[in-house]
Amino acid sequence: MRTALVIGTGLIGTSAAIALSGRGVQVYLTDEDPGRARTAAALGAGTDEAPDGPVDLAIVAVPPALVARTLAGAQARGLARGYLDVASVKGGPRRELEAAGCDLTAYIGTHPMSGSERSGPLAATADLFEGRPWVLSPTPETDTEVLNLALELVALCRAVPVVMDADAHDRAVALVSHTPQLLSSMVAARLAGAEEAAVRLCGQGIRDVTRIAASDPAMWIDILSANPGPVADVLSEVAADLAETVEALRALQAADEAKRTAGAAGIEDVLRRGNAGRERVPGKHGAAPATYEVVTVLISDQPGELARIFADAGAAGVNIEDVRIEHATGQQAGRIGLTVVPQAAPALTAALREKGWALRQ
Amino acid sequence: MRTALVIGTGLIGTSAAIALSGRGVQVYLTDEDPGRARTAAALGAGTDEAPDGPVDLAIVAVPPALVARTLAGAQARGLARGYLDVASVKGGPRRELEAAGCDLTAYIGTHPMSGSERSGPLAATADLFEGRPWVLSPTPETDTEVLNLALELVALCRAVPVVMDADAHDRAVALVSHTPQLLSSMVAARLAGAEEAAVRLCGQGIRDVTRIAASDPAMWIDILSANPGPVADVLSEVAADLAETVEALRALQAADEAKRTAGAAGIEDVLRRGNAGRERVPGKHGAAPATYEVVTVLISDQPGELARIFADAGAAGVNIEDVRIEHATGQQAGRIGLTVVPQAAPALTAALREKGWALRQ
Repeated sequence: MRTALVIGTGLIGTSAAIALSGRGVQVYLTDEDPGRARTAAALGAGTDEAPDGPVDLAIVAVPPALVARTLAGAQARGLARGYLDVASVKGGPRRELEAAGCDLTAYIGTHPMSGSERSGPLAATADLFEGRPWVLSPTPETDTEVLNLALELVALCRAVPVVMDADAHDRAVALVSHTPQLLSSMVAARLAGAEEAAVRLCGQGIRDVTRIAASDPAMWIDILSANPGPVADVLSEVAADLAETVEALRALQAADEAKRTAGAAGIEDVLRRGNAGRERVPGKHGAAPATYEVVTVLISDQPGELARIFADAGAAGVNIEDVRIEHATGQQAGRIGLTVVPQAAPALTAALREKGWALRQ
Repeated sequence: MRTALVIGTGLIGTSAAIALSGRGVQVYLTDEDPGRARTAAALGAGTDEAPDGPVDLAIVAVPPALVARTLAGAQARGLARGYLDVASVKGGPRRELEAAGCDLTAYIGTHPMSGSERSGPLAATADLFEGRPWVLSPTPETDTEVLNLALELVALCRAVPVVMDADAHDRAVALVSHTPQLLSSMVAARLAGAEEAAVRLCGQGIRDVTRIAASDPAMWIDILSANPGPVADVLSEVAADLAETVEALRALQAADEAKRTAGAAGIEDVLRRGNAGRERVPGKHGAAPATYEVVTVLISDQPGELARIFADAGAAGVNIEDVRIEHATGQQAGRIGLTVVPQAAPALTAALREKGWALRQ
């Protein structure tokens, strides 16, 4: 790939453009708002002048609802050899392209699994896609040459290509992204009208479950509007589990012991299926979650405490896999959990003890 | 408080005993399994010999279903001046104590909001309660002297006392602890039978939402069995939101534009209520969440990288409020998000850039 045209210079389009420009591709930028294309150009994403002939690859980086129209227009003008879009939903745009009579041999649908709570060209960075999955959904008609252009884009952005059918992609993101978002919002919504005394009892569990409930509603309405069917399907399955769980809890209140036993079995079932599902969530580096140990250290709230602790861990030659800081309620102290491979835990414990740190067993 | 009797030497009882012993209280330990009491004594929690007269405070640290029977037995033998329990549910045990004709003037129900994924005396530590809320639920009959003994226990364990009605406590933990647990399990349960390709797309959002789905089912069955009514009530409210959300998603698929608009409004409503609830989750030190900035740094997977980064941050005099490590899929690299107060972000950014770190804007 020597030349590319990015149509739509928001977060994703501009980030891809910066990555391509940084790796020697001549990138042309266009946006329905010329000021945004100019901003992207000023950030080193390429030039906002028009190319003087067809480019190798046109990257359509517009919201899902605009993909078909934008792509059809670009093809009609013969702007590129190959065309792809990067919208977060793949089935709907594909069907719209077919209906619009677009050339599907020159097209591939794609979705980089990257994002940010920020948007627009100013939030763009060359490393946005680094190490993240980038889904490619070729049609049966897609030319091999176009697939290879897409693979080159993914490689230049240092993402990890994952080939997946468009509808399978939409069901997958409904499951791993859209459903967790909505359920996180629903758990958080219960707190909106709660008594202050209850909210004070929040711990790390609810804090983690509701983190993404802080997301931007406007962005999520766009995403969910483009994928309502698959999300409704997964939510309906959750609703069935929820109804059974409420019934199981009511059975736990029964006078009849057999009913209580059945209730406990119902609760156990959902908890065990949750265990099984959680075990499948990829851990570090996309591998199956390894068994780690957590070494917990008490820290005070002073600058340099974390530096000291990591310096001491580093001096012991131990690689920290993950870090969790838990803060105490109402006090200027907290504890930090250092996740390490089990073999490293004794060395880390000994090294930190020797340096005077207070450890939890 | 000069003497205490801990009845039940599991994680909570032994941790309290270690904290009290370490601060000069003479602690006696008993357990229906004498071996566990011996283990606790060996850990420095106190003595497993019987006291030769009534102690100041008896701490009943047995599962919720056994609280009333254990406490009635202890009162019948006149083992202490004051009695409290530490079970995770407060309404049921209180009603059972009343029914059993216990002396409620000498009793106070309490619940330390601490725990661990581990259990038993060997998991106990003196700092288990440090900085955590410890709920006190006095009855109208509770003697002031007994309330003060409980407050002294909380202070010696360095926890933060929160006075709360027993039923209000049970509703609060249903909301902030039991409901998030079950919904986390339900989101994770959807992954149990999912296709491998879908699971590969999991990102940080679902990882956070499903973290507590890894919890021990047996422990949660005990907890939920003691609080089924309030949990079922909160889950029913979530179920109502869920049904409305499914309906809104189906409306988004309608041909009629007015229906689609109504669907989008329904989705927006649940997302906005989620925003409002999330804003109430206490952040660091129990305060309202402050506005922080996140400085994102690319790191390689080498021992010492974290040490270097925290040393460099520490040298800049910047206090890191929180740390989030995001690992790349399938690659030996990741990025680390350092949360700091906004005023500190420019200094941290400059200091890390100067040291050669690659930063995300």
